[in-house]
Amino acid sequence: MPPADSRERARAMVLGLQDEICAGLEKLDGQASFLEESWERPEGGGGRSRVMRDGAVFEQGGVNFSEVHGEELPPSILNQRPDAKGHPWFATGTSMVLHPRNPYIPTVHLNYRYFEAGPVWWFGGGADLTPFYPYLEDARHFHRLHQQACDSVSPELYKAFKPWCDEYFFLKHRGETRGVGGIFYDYQDGSGVLYKGQDPEGLAASVSRDLGSHPKTWEQLFNLGQACGKAFLPGYVPIAEKRGQQTYGDRERQFQLYRRGRYAEFNLVWDRGTIFGLQTNGRTESILMSLPPLVRWEYGYKPAEGSREALLTDLFTRPQNWFEDSSLEERCRPHQAVD
Amino acid sequence: MPPADSRERARAMVLGLQDEICAGLEKLDGQASFLEESWERPEGGGGRSRVMRDGAVFEQGGVNFSEVHGEELPPSILNQRPDAKGHPWFATGTSMVLHPRNPYIPTVHLNYRYFEAGPVWWFGGGADLTPFYPYLEDARHFHRLHQQACDSVSPELYKAFKPWCDEYFFLKHRGETRGVGGIFYDYQDGSGVLYKGQDPEGLAASVSRDLGSHPKTWEQLFNLGQACGKAFLPGYVPIAEKRGQQTYGDRERQFQLYRRGRYAEFNLVWDRGTIFGLQTNGRTESILMSLPPLVRWEYGYKPAEGSREALLTDLFTRPQNWFEDSSLEERCRPHQAVD
Repeated sequence: MPPADSRERARAMVLGLQDEICAGLEKLDGQASFLEESWERPEGGGGRSRVMRDGAVFEQGGVNFSEVHGEELPPSILNQRPDAKGHPWFATGTSMVLHPRNPYIPTVHLNYRYFEAGPVWWFGGGADLTPFYPYLEDARHFHRLHQQACDSVSPELYKAFKPWCDEYFFLKHRGETRGVGGIFYDYQDGSGVLYKGQDPEGLAASVSRDLGSHPKTWEQLFNLGQACGKAFLPGYVPIAEKRGQQTYGDRERQFQLYRRGRYAEFNLVWDRGTIFGLQTNGRTESILMSLPPLVRWEYGYKPAEGSREALLTDLFTRPQNWFEDSSLEERCRPHQAVD
Repeated sequence: MPPADSRERARAMVLGLQDEICAGLEKLDGQASFLEESWERPEGGGGRSRVMRDGAVFEQGGVNFSEVHGEELPPSILNQRPDAKGHPWFATGTSMVLHPRNPYIPTVHLNYRYFEAGPVWWFGGGADLTPFYPYLEDARHFHRLHQQACDSVSPELYKAFKPWCDEYFFLKHRGETRGVGGIFYDYQDGSGVLYKGQDPEGLAASVSRDLGSHPKTWEQLFNLGQACGKAFLPGYVPIAEKRGQQTYGDRERQFQLYRRGRYAEFNLVWDRGTIFGLQTNGRTESILMSLPPLVRWEYGYKPAEGSREALLTDLFTRPQNWFEDSSLEERCRPHQAVD
């Protein structure tokens, strides 16, 4: 059961995350700051959108907070959650997408959220990294920090949330993951069942069935979101600082713009949250804040064999066991320095 | 009933259109030519993709031909068309999207297609214009040529196909049409009923119910596709030639890149053909050839009041009665010359 002040605490948690992350990102950028725009939802609730543009590090970045509520859920959702019938509902969350200018710095996304309707409640969230150039140590660093955050709640979560991320951020029409992944989870309601409803039947689900110690309390799941959210800055800032030192040219910029096309394709074609928002009269500008500021499409492009761009495509857009697979080091070695 | 050689004739018609249009566009461009790539579909059929890049007029343009067939339709389609059960199916079509470099030249799309499965057959197609700057005479010219083509089969078609185009190429999440429209039709099977299945319930359907003389033979509908397809070059080339003379600067280029974002949004979020292709293992590169070569997104952008960009947004992305509405001239007058 959630505590009596569950909504206030969840709200304060994601709002605090937004503040903390924005402060950390402004410090990292050192030049631009976030512009804030508050908005209200006519049907109940509202949000706080923050956008940074033309920074030293970030070409564009957005960090949203929203808190929406209503008297009763639409029938399509009530059909799946009949126990929510007759109850007002509440949802709050923060989400972020950053598009750095330097192609050596990865694009990154984060989202943590909480939902409640009468006796029904759950937490969801995650963060995933999308590099344009292939650095094994960056993928490992990002994963390590998120693994540690999961471990702080239960040592068995990462092995379910990591493949869930690979499955969710997958571009079927390209046969590619969006990037090197991270963690993703949804419908965490303390029932001891990790998967409900329409979610993965694949790798993540098969792993989760073997888990013994799922978080079973609201407090544990609240701590999970909190811990993972706090893992973002230490998981990302050192990568951005290091890669931001590397100089790049037109080749790297063009490849970055091309790969950003995949980001736009994923968000517009496959991302359930984006599609749902656009088709149900959500706040379009806030939803599409995730789209890259500049994108290139090129018919039939293929990276040159043996190039860093080919390594990125072949290895960093496929699910990998970043820690266990020792062959990764050998495959990546030729390109770990700038060539 | 279709003639015995219906598939060969439909195939030759759309293939001929591809040839004729490509020749006309190469002549217009005067610099670049189309590169051709043929491909086969493992399950049956194949296609001929033609792409032009970095031309004098066209930053990128693609004209596809495809002809696909199979032993039996998937159950999801057979449910809607039970009379096609047990019959092999056949589909052929040509589709085109052009992205000119000069922002004064509109982007344009065309598609004509034919489907057959045993006793079931239909024609579909259309063409629509997406200007970046607001020239009333261009919208009228493009519509006039397509109206004349429709009129050559029945004088009552344009008034159904014009609103159908406005409805189909509509970005709900923006409350905008993709551009000034043109014509669109689908499921034209000679039954005397213009709308079947999942198509419009709105303006187009209400107009069509009043029509008395729908084409009722295969030959008439074949002629319709032929006539509309042939209307494209005279409907577009004079616009491109005229607007291509106008010089532009960074302001116009930036607005063009921004508006191209709407094109990408429509194709990836709303276009049934694109979504269906991507979700059913179609040839991704050919499907996404329609995406612009370079696109910009900007959070919260609003054109300055009274500007050409505002006129484009307010008037040229809303359904209009291009010929009948005399107030359009007055609203457009201040911006018909380059300011």
